[in-house]
Amino acid sequence: MNTSASAAPVPIHTDALVIGTGPAGLYAAFQLGLLGLDAQLIDALPEVGGQCQALYADKGVYDIPGMARTTGAQLAEGLLAQLAQIRAFAPLSQRLHLGQLIEKIERLPEQNRYRIRSNTGQTFIAPCIILSAGVGAFVPRSLSLKGLDALSNSLHYRPGQAADFAQQTVVIVGEEDEAVNWACDLAQSGLPASVTLNHRRTQLAASPAVQTRLEQLLAQGAMRFQAGIIQGLGSPPEHTGQLQSLQLLQPDGSAATLPCTRLGLLLGLSPKMGPLAEWGLQLERRQLPVHPATMASNLPGVFAIGDVISYPGKLKLIACAFHEATLAAHAALAYCAPERVTPLQYTSSSALLQSRLQQL
Amino acid sequence: MNTSASAAPVPIHTDALVIGTGPAGLYAAFQLGLLGLDAQLIDALPEVGGQCQALYADKGVYDIPGMARTTGAQLAEGLLAQLAQIRAFAPLSQRLHLGQLIEKIERLPEQNRYRIRSNTGQTFIAPCIILSAGVGAFVPRSLSLKGLDALSNSLHYRPGQAADFAQQTVVIVGEEDEAVNWACDLAQSGLPASVTLNHRRTQLAASPAVQTRLEQLLAQGAMRFQAGIIQGLGSPPEHTGQLQSLQLLQPDGSAATLPCTRLGLLLGLSPKMGPLAEWGLQLERRQLPVHPATMASNLPGVFAIGDVISYPGKLKLIACAFHEATLAAHAALAYCAPERVTPLQYTSSSALLQSRLQQL
Repeated sequence: MNTSASAAPVPIHTDALVIGTGPAGLYAAFQLGLLGLDAQLIDALPEVGGQCQALYADKGVYDIPGMARTTGAQLAEGLLAQLAQIRAFAPLSQRLHLGQLIEKIERLPEQNRYRIRSNTGQTFIAPCIILSAGVGAFVPRSLSLKGLDALSNSLHYRPGQAADFAQQTVVIVGEEDEAVNWACDLAQSGLPASVTLNHRRTQLAASPAVQTRLEQLLAQGAMRFQAGIIQGLGSPPEHTGQLQSLQLLQPDGSAATLPCTRLGLLLGLSPKMGPLAEWGLQLERRQLPVHPATMASNLPGVFAIGDVISYPGKLKLIACAFHEATLAAHAALAYCAPERVTPLQYTSSSALLQSRLQQL
Repeated sequence: MNTSASAAPVPIHTDALVIGTGPAGLYAAFQLGLLGLDAQLIDALPEVGGQCQALYADKGVYDIPGMARTTGAQLAEGLLAQLAQIRAFAPLSQRLHLGQLIEKIERLPEQNRYRIRSNTGQTFIAPCIILSAGVGAFVPRSLSLKGLDALSNSLHYRPGQAADFAQQTVVIVGEEDEAVNWACDLAQSGLPASVTLNHRRTQLAASPAVQTRLEQLLAQGAMRFQAGIIQGLGSPPEHTGQLQSLQLLQPDGSAATLPCTRLGLLLGLSPKMGPLAEWGLQLERRQLPVHPATMASNLPGVFAIGDVISYPGKLKLIACAFHEATLAAHAALAYCAPERVTPLQYTSSSALLQSRLQQL
């Protein structure tokens, strides 16, 4: 994952950029590889699996065809292993551009290509896009506070090392295990000046063991818990350029000021369409109508699959997304390289398809 | 499996009869169960799996979504285990009507139902049919010989016990392991008057070990091998009612008469559409056009999925058949019980769907 875009990376040329690495995107990439096309994949999350990983990694799923029971995480793992079978895609890690958000998509009409740029500065040049963006890019939920955007140096959306918070007045906002454990880790390190866990009410969603850990550290005075809704930033950061405090509405209705120089927001993930929604695609009620035979959108070379699309009979089920991925890959081949379209072949019998696979 | 239809079995009433237990049919039945509908399944083969079992049980299959590698047999097994999770379908064996061929389908318009009769005399009464018949029912390949149909008592399409062939002049036609092993078994039993293996040419497809076994028995004089194409029945069976010999065209072009009172035909399986093709369904070039949003055929309540259908973009792939099965099941619910259609639910989160499943 390249997050320091000091020098712009060399543009990557490919046949198809797959946007989104949920089940639909992973399987589309596999089908592209099976058909002999090149593919690159990009996702906002740091690991593949999309909603499978973000929403139900450990929950039982019972309707994936042929799998009496699986979980979101196991399904993602199986699809990744299947994709890794494509010989031409090795090493697969170099084709998976994770933790990257699409910032800009533009059409280069004279080349019949799209140029796609991510927030790391990576650009992709491709005749085809397979959009499998689900309900949007999963990005960390934030707070809607005036002046917050200017404070990116004081804001943290993932747990960080205690050493980076030495002498800081830290407030962690959240109620899940990840938030509570991070606050406890920082408190136990003794490095910050103080650590406060904040949630809008006193009841937390963290697991019992993690809550016990929190209670022990609170009892020892190693950290504080402060319930309340953050309503503003204490000293307007425009004036100081530094976060100094938070304005809190406490559960009893009273106001309070909470000192804070570093703010950790661990509020879960929220899907965001971002530039995908502002780029010439004809969305209708947040859905993208596609041609059901090809998954073609209104833009040439752009195919879309999975939860983001609509067509007559569309069901938002993974079993259906695999079909959509298959049709989109075949349509991408017909679009990119019509001269390479062959009669349908089967992996159980086709020497050509088997030559594109490596057994792992 | 009931093959002696002495007393006609009681008709079975169900919401949907699934014709064909390949991957598409098995998954359609699972989706029907998940939606709270009743289903029964029928297949010509003695085990589930359709082409998966009949054509590539042990071959590697690499494009089933989420399964880096499986085989036809493993896939069928997984789909059967998934179907067995439907609580209301237990015991599943009573819903699987295997080794049965559909003989007649008629519509009962006043009841808005179909009556389907199999060759065992079993009848089914159902408002819906989900036709997942693939390329047709897999039935044993036969020979096209005048008078053969009248000889069913002398004809065998599966290996039988040696005791049933005592004193008989047996000819086994075939070249695969099953045919050669059966001929060898009969020869080693010493019960038949004679055993001859016949294939149109001297080169056989049986495995080396089985060919070695054959060669040893031939060297011992325990049986004979006779190459040639069977072109007729020696004594016209209309006259005697008994098979007596076969007319053979030998590889050198000469004719021969091969004594034979019992004929074993182990020539593999051949798909046959049978009454499905002569029953009001509008087939076009052996394909059944369906509505791509519902898999509806031209007959009310009849939905079709898998290799037998066509619609714009149709790919004859199992990944696509699962999608078709899902759409057909949802359309069957809307047709049978529109009042029970709910917003889409997920097995990972819906208490209703989970209540319909039992963990195995």
